[in-house]
Amino acid sequence: LDYQHVQVPFEITLWIMLASLAKIGFHLYNKLPSVVPESCLLIFVGLIMGGIIYGLNDRSPPVMDSDIFFLYLLPPIVLDAGYFMPSRPFFENIGTILLYAVVGTVWNVFGIGFSLYGICQVRAFRLQDVSLLHNLLFGSLIAAVDPVAVLAVFEEIHINELLHILVFGESLLNDAVTVVLYKLFRSFCEMPTKSVDVFAGVGKFFVVGLGGVLVGLSFGFTAAFTTRFTKDIRVIEPLFVFLYSYLSYLTAEMFHLSGIVAIISCAMGMKRYVEANISLKSHTTVKYFMKMWSSVSDTLIFIFLGVSTIGENHEWNWPYICFTVIFCLVWRALGVLVLTFFVNRFHVNTITSKDQFIIAYGGLRGAICFSLVFLLPDFHRKKLFIAATTVVILFTVFVQGMTIRPLVDLLAVKRKRESAPTVGEQIHIRFLDHLLAGIEDISGHWGQYYWKDKLEYFNSKYLQKILLREYDQPKSSIVLLYEKLERKHAMELAQAGQLGHGLAHPSFLSNDRTVITDQKLEDTPNPDALDNMQEILARNLYRIRRTGPAYNRHTLPGDSEPAERAEEILILRHKNL
Amino acid sequence: LDYQHVQVPFEITLWIMLASLAKIGFHLYNKLPSVVPESCLLIFVGLIMGGIIYGLNDRSPPVMDSDIFFLYLLPPIVLDAGYFMPSRPFFENIGTILLYAVVGTVWNVFGIGFSLYGICQVRAFRLQDVSLLHNLLFGSLIAAVDPVAVLAVFEEIHINELLHILVFGESLLNDAVTVVLYKLFRSFCEMPTKSVDVFAGVGKFFVVGLGGVLVGLSFGFTAAFTTRFTKDIRVIEPLFVFLYSYLSYLTAEMFHLSGIVAIISCAMGMKRYVEANISLKSHTTVKYFMKMWSSVSDTLIFIFLGVSTIGENHEWNWPYICFTVIFCLVWRALGVLVLTFFVNRFHVNTITSKDQFIIAYGGLRGAICFSLVFLLPDFHRKKLFIAATTVVILFTVFVQGMTIRPLVDLLAVKRKRESAPTVGEQIHIRFLDHLLAGIEDISGHWGQYYWKDKLEYFNSKYLQKILLREYDQPKSSIVLLYEKLERKHAMELAQAGQLGHGLAHPSFLSNDRTVITDQKLEDTPNPDALDNMQEILARNLYRIRRTGPAYNRHTLPGDSEPAERAEEILILRHKNL
Repeated sequence: LDYQHVQVPFEITLWIMLASLAKIGFHLYNKLPSVVPESCLLIFVGLIMGGIIYGLNDRSPPVMDSDIFFLYLLPPIVLDAGYFMPSRPFFENIGTILLYAVVGTVWNVFGIGFSLYGICQVRAFRLQDVSLLHNLLFGSLIAAVDPVAVLAVFEEIHINELLHILVFGESLLNDAVTVVLYKLFRSFCEMPTKSVDVFAGVGKFFVVGLGGVLVGLSFGFTAAFTTRFTKDIRVIEPLFVFLYSYLSYLTAEMFHLSGIVAIISCAMGMKRYVEANISLKSHTTVKYFMKMWSSVSDTLIFIFLGVSTIGENHEWNWPYICFTVIFCLVWRALGVLVLTFFVNRFHVNTITSKDQFIIAYGGLRGAICFSLVFLLPDFHRKKLFIAATTVVILFTVFVQGMTIRPLVDLLAVKRKRESAPTVGEQIHIRFLDHLLAGIEDISGHWGQYYWKDKLEYFNSKYLQKILLREYDQPKSSIVLLYEKLERKHAMELAQAGQLGHGLAHPSFLSNDRTVITDQKLEDTPNPDALDNMQEILARNLYRIRRTGPAYNRHTLPGDSEPAERAEEILILRHKNL
Repeated sequence: LDYQHVQVPFEITLWIMLASLAKIGFHLYNKLPSVVPESCLLIFVGLIMGGIIYGLNDRSPPVMDSDIFFLYLLPPIVLDAGYFMPSRPFFENIGTILLYAVVGTVWNVFGIGFSLYGICQVRAFRLQDVSLLHNLLFGSLIAAVDPVAVLAVFEEIHINELLHILVFGESLLNDAVTVVLYKLFRSFCEMPTKSVDVFAGVGKFFVVGLGGVLVGLSFGFTAAFTTRFTKDIRVIEPLFVFLYSYLSYLTAEMFHLSGIVAIISCAMGMKRYVEANISLKSHTTVKYFMKMWSSVSDTLIFIFLGVSTIGENHEWNWPYICFTVIFCLVWRALGVLVLTFFVNRFHVNTITSKDQFIIAYGGLRGAICFSLVFLLPDFHRKKLFIAATTVVILFTVFVQGMTIRPLVDLLAVKRKRESAPTVGEQIHIRFLDHLLAGIEDISGHWGQYYWKDKLEYFNSKYLQKILLREYDQPKSSIVLLYEKLERKHAMELAQAGQLGHGLAHPSFLSNDRTVITDQKLEDTPNPDALDNMQEILARNLYRIRRTGPAYNRHTLPGDSEPAERAEEILILRHKNL
């Protein structure tokens, strides 16, 4: 037996195996996941495993290594989040998201830090030795909402898109603030003589955030450019998506920029071009593997969280820990109230008080705080901070995570619509975008539609020519959707064994149909309302679809009637306009 | 800048990136890969990189770590090879393959070892200090044909299936012999007092080989069993294929069994059941990722081989190195001649002298020898062995690898047929299998058909019930092929935009068609001969395909005519017989 030799890969494989088997186990009992979020169950498994290890070895089980977390477990989750981010609601609400992520997080950090310092002044609690700086440092790591925890809970409760993107976007973009404040306070703690320069801090925030965006976008565009040349070796196409986005994360971390922001920009920047360049099978592989990887990382993180909780790393102080939980809740609620007040003054679609409650209540903490607290420099109260962080995480994940679903039901918060937008809606939205861009242009108001239009122009004029392999015929997204529907439909026909066995009527008007949405791997059923639109499309887009090579032996690609051709040119021209 | 922190993942990512970019680079120029095998080009890139590193640092570039090779780079390639192994020709020729792999390798080891010892006795060569044991040890590592090198070259020359499986199968299965002999001689070198026990060696060989098969099969069946329960979380299905096969490799290595044999048995054992259990998209991901992974590993191995060649690890001794190359060629040629003589006496389909030449000439050496020679215990002539191994590898990969394609052309060796077997052929083969099994059963001769039939019975009676999710309706492989054709055809129709636009004639008789083969990711065009068979199938299998849920709103699944139903039952009964 030579265990030493294979130990590292063997144990890694076993951990991943455990995580995957745990996932299968939960899903075997259909009732369990609908009551308890998976994250809670996984932490529970981790707690049991930690208990077993503790019982057998009689010493604390190994703690999740912060390096492993930040270098290997976090990137897949963030990459998945960025790649499948619904870009439209994200960019429409980017102002609100940034306000919550930047101002809200700063508010929470200082709120929690100062009020905990106040608690420390109470003589009876025996906490006088915890300085203001240490409290602020603790505030900086406990204040930030955690994307992994938010994703795990919010994906299961199917909240409406606006709320989801507000909470989730905040949890992603607050990384830049957290990085700056955490490092700032840490360096002060280590060298307390330095003078505080607020402006340097603000400047640093912009460098960290915008630097991350820049690094991410440049890697994203390089990735898109690289996939231009992979036509002959399709098999390594998916690799580039993973390699470049991981490199963007590592590069950002190397320069002390925000890795999360970098990998998200990279994923969002490359997605559109990479999708157009790589083959359909490669894209399935990319999507599948991203989901798989992030889901395994996610599982491992929660199990490790559970395992790491067990042991003797904790110093228990009732008042400090209880007040930490209370302050986390109170300051977040206050912050959301105040910020939303300002947001609502400038927006037509206001955020209702129900929504505000869910935003405040959805501020879950997770593994990022946990890893940051272990990275703290050694000082005599570190174990207290670890205990407080653990309690806050467990409280938010268990109590808030488990009650948020009943609360959403109780408050009748608007849910996510289960169906994909119909083709009619898509056309309508498109039309309104163009209209509003035109109105903004005429009125001289440079709003979001104006900028979106300009960006789209820049994209089709320059970026697509550089980054896409076949840039001369960019297809409209509606045509693409239509093609997807056709493909899907063809597969159904083939499965039902009805292909070409003399169906007299146009098949497209006679069957149930399903739409493949980009956001989800699983197919969602589609309402009958689509039928009508598809009929119109089937008539109008008939010739456009014909621009690809026709595989029928009996008809030549070019022999359409002149009248039809005229119609085709007309439609094409419309599209280009 | 904090490079230390991200160094490990950053450098790994950069190496993989370099490998992928090198691959893209070669394929940009279409002419290059058709003349020079990719493996040669990659070694060349490695040599250049090694030269640069050597020039800049003025010391030997890092050598490929044997642990990294055996634990991380080799498994993906072997897994890919095992998973896509054409099982029929492999099992039909298993006897010949084992003969080449076991007896042939032993023959080569002792032949090369003893004759090199003879060379060492020549006083003028100044090699008297290399003992017989050391020569045999060297023989045991240099004698084995390398699967990675064989795969890289043979995949490009498209040799016929029989030759390919003979050389490739040998290169995979000789691992057990190599492991046993290498470890045997190594332990003798370290403790020369031990007595030689031939029988223990032979016994060990069986343990190592059959143990590997056993470990592999048990992990393979566990994997198949696990995928029974993944219906609700499709997204982690591909993971199990990779996790279990990797575990089988590591477990085998841990117990000093043959890891290569284990992972191949695992892949071949699980393939059939896993394919039936997991979704189509998962399976695409599995296939794609396997190909991607193995192709990257392969690229990295050859680049590292090049890099490791540069440096001061070598001790040059002309006679020893030249004679090593010559003996490798001569003993292999003799071995193939002698063994084939015996093989041909017991087979109807004899191996021609042309084939024998290609088998002998295709005995390429590669990274496995290279890693083994670095694992040798330190002794004063290790650098000579390293030099000789490097020269043999470079000679076989460059000279033999580059000339084998022209030689195959020159000798007019039978090529691989480009088209997949037609449905008619498949039916014919099936029929003959049953017939021969029946004849063997009656005549009391327990040959391969008899055993295959028994195995198939055992499989459908027990294994499928345990391992498959829906075992009650195992589909015939012909029905599956037909479904694939239908799907493929539907996709083509959808792409050409002709779906359901009033095609009057049965679509299946009117178009070009292509067949998806299991062995290849790319589609291969199919001859017109298929048309006829497919017409027959389209008529006869019409109802069987209907057993799946029918998606048409206007027809109920069950409302077929009684006459048709009778026909259906008849066909089903035929199938079950």
